[in-house]
Amino acid sequence: MNILTAEQFANEMKDPSFTMNNEQALDHTVLEIIKHVRKDGDDALIRYTEKFDRAKLNSLTVSEDEFKEARELVDPAFLPALKQAKENIESFHNAQKEQSWFMNKEPGIMLGQKVTPLDKVGVYIPGGKAAYPSSVLMDVIPAKIAGVKKIVITTPPQPNGKVNPYVLVAAEEVGVHTIYKVGGAQAIAALAYGTETIEKVAKIVGPGNAYVARAKKWVYGDVAIDMIAGPSEICVVADETAPPNYVAADLLSQAEHDESASAICIATSNTLAEQIKLEIEKQTATLERKEIIEQSINQHGKIIVASDLTEAFTIVNEIAPEHLQLMIKNASDNVQFIENAGAIFLGNYSPEPLGDYFAGPNHTLPTNGTAKFASPLGVYDFIKKSSIISYSKDAIQDAADQIITIANVEGLTAHANSIRIRKDEPNA
Amino acid sequence: MNILTAEQFANEMKDPSFTMNNEQALDHTVLEIIKHVRKDGDDALIRYTEKFDRAKLNSLTVSEDEFKEARELVDPAFLPALKQAKENIESFHNAQKEQSWFMNKEPGIMLGQKVTPLDKVGVYIPGGKAAYPSSVLMDVIPAKIAGVKKIVITTPPQPNGKVNPYVLVAAEEVGVHTIYKVGGAQAIAALAYGTETIEKVAKIVGPGNAYVARAKKWVYGDVAIDMIAGPSEICVVADETAPPNYVAADLLSQAEHDESASAICIATSNTLAEQIKLEIEKQTATLERKEIIEQSINQHGKIIVASDLTEAFTIVNEIAPEHLQLMIKNASDNVQFIENAGAIFLGNYSPEPLGDYFAGPNHTLPTNGTAKFASPLGVYDFIKKSSIISYSKDAIQDAADQIITIANVEGLTAHANSIRIRKDEPNA
Repeated sequence: MNILTAEQFANEMKDPSFTMNNEQALDHTVLEIIKHVRKDGDDALIRYTEKFDRAKLNSLTVSEDEFKEARELVDPAFLPALKQAKENIESFHNAQKEQSWFMNKEPGIMLGQKVTPLDKVGVYIPGGKAAYPSSVLMDVIPAKIAGVKKIVITTPPQPNGKVNPYVLVAAEEVGVHTIYKVGGAQAIAALAYGTETIEKVAKIVGPGNAYVARAKKWVYGDVAIDMIAGPSEICVVADETAPPNYVAADLLSQAEHDESASAICIATSNTLAEQIKLEIEKQTATLERKEIIEQSINQHGKIIVASDLTEAFTIVNEIAPEHLQLMIKNASDNVQFIENAGAIFLGNYSPEPLGDYFAGPNHTLPTNGTAKFASPLGVYDFIKKSSIISYSKDAIQDAADQIITIANVEGLTAHANSIRIRKDEPNA
Repeated sequence: MNILTAEQFANEMKDPSFTMNNEQALDHTVLEIIKHVRKDGDDALIRYTEKFDRAKLNSLTVSEDEFKEARELVDPAFLPALKQAKENIESFHNAQKEQSWFMNKEPGIMLGQKVTPLDKVGVYIPGGKAAYPSSVLMDVIPAKIAGVKKIVITTPPQPNGKVNPYVLVAAEEVGVHTIYKVGGAQAIAALAYGTETIEKVAKIVGPGNAYVARAKKWVYGDVAIDMIAGPSEICVVADETAPPNYVAADLLSQAEHDESASAICIATSNTLAEQIKLEIEKQTATLERKEIIEQSINQHGKIIVASDLTEAFTIVNEIAPEHLQLMIKNASDNVQFIENAGAIFLGNYSPEPLGDYFAGPNHTLPTNGTAKFASPLGVYDFIKKSSIISYSKDAIQDAADQIITIANVEGLTAHANSIRIRKDEPNA
């Protein structure tokens, strides 16, 4: 773990390689997959699943029997924990519901905004060795609360053709019964354009590897997507009130995600930085995923020593981290200074894994500096709005001359004609 | 103008060429431009502006003198109309403001969502022969209401190096004083990555031609964009209460935008369809932009005869039009059946140009079927949210076992460690 000054870090941020997008190398493969799925439909999906997941499928769909089997395979302690997490996530996301509204500015004029849920949503859940039941909750619950009628999940099968039982149990718990055994760019293509088995959706959400992310960029526009997610990140701002062992544990929890995950600490003193560094070394040795953690910490981990909190917050806003922990005195009083962060965790007892699984706010968060313009996944991602405009005959006649003036300025005389005809031929 | 049955139209929709994305041919040029702007900065902008806009620039920025000059060049009737439009747009968009909020579910637990305006926004305004002061209002006002501190405009200059005076006056009226004389993909690249003169922004909004749209797709992810806009569309649902001359005028107002604009009418009887068709022919002959209109109507215009309103609404929801006019009895009672449309205009006196310029709702709307998942531009496009999570020591200890269970199921044991350390070493 490198310790650097704020100035050294600022110089590092200036290096364009810090944010350079190197994913164009994937394009050849990803575009080839999308093309074949659009052309061959299910056949292409079955072929790619055999090639990439080493699973020979007879059916792309998880069966009722497989759902039943999954219930018997999971740890008995899992279901109560899952149910509590679900309740917490529902409670938070219920507060995000939006209403249609209208206003009557003047007699004869009604304006408004109609809120309509998306019709069909596809949720991508990563597979492979790991299980992600928490992503099932985080992606499905806000869609359900928004009122989306049709929600399907795609996830890559294991080589035996089965889907992870924890994913199945979580899906059943949130009321999703349609799960397709497809992963990678091929799953994104199927959701975007449809095949014989998989219906085209309006929006694709959920995390995934680099192929999935790149495929989402390509289908974007033909279908909506949640975001293009990069590696996970944490930034912990720590002052002298932060226990170094807590700070270290939280940094390491992000580092274990994968080698490209980034864990950054901004400490207000050099002494604290050294203590945290020592704790990181001590705890790493005891952790199961030590190899991944060491690579992540060596490549992307850093402790920046800031002269004060003002400097620390400037650095935070420049990084725009996915997860931000404020382990400082009066953390909540300082939230006002944070402009860019996906989620903000306050105090010494709000570690980031609390948000990953349990507290209620969504764990799908903007990465790679995109918190400068993007938000956590929410109910607002599963609705869209339509404007409503209603003018009476009197109202349009009153406004006619001004509208015609602007239309003529823009050279759009047929626009002017559409207004003028209502003035000149009012009783048509 | 072709008249077809609902069945004939359904078959046409099945033809994949209807939605096929043909813009990949632009990629070579657009990526070349982006690469050069990233490499050469202002020099590239000046070079491309000379090449594409035939303007030799000494400065990329509109000067104070040019703003002053513009005030003297505009039609005196324009300013009052602009001011009224501005007031209407502000009034509507003020209703879209969102607040930060928090909840205390239980003692020791605080969750919330912080709303923060974007820091810097770039607005693209098309240039060429036409002027688009209305786009200045529609793109800048919601950003201002959201609280965006830095808003800049880029627009291609005329060959004499000047920017259209109506654009300048509108910009000044909404408080934007930084206008760059750059258009096309080069403007999008400059806003996305920055040059010596143009600062990198968090989000790019505004309409543009095919190069602009494609460049926006490419920079998406490095920067936020509003949408990838396609040609303009109108869909008018007309029953026997709709005056055929009004319907025709409104269809033609969309057709004049450009040859690829689409004007579709869904009529509830064949007689009405014939009357509208006749009116279209009659009015087209009298319109200034007759040539564009004829091409648009011949290539993309159609009148679909539906057997009843239920069938008409099914077709509307399938098309998901940018603009929808309901020129039917009890229009407002039928809004409930519309799921997919950018803006919905009710009755015989709410023609689409009213929304383009004046009524208040935004005229930047989802095109090309994207109203199935996208919304009009709004204040919500210029803010982003951060989740807030705060647990007390007691609260995290109560939840610890359940969080650890889920973390272990996902195989993320360092996550479990970050929770466990707060349980086992509570007084660290």
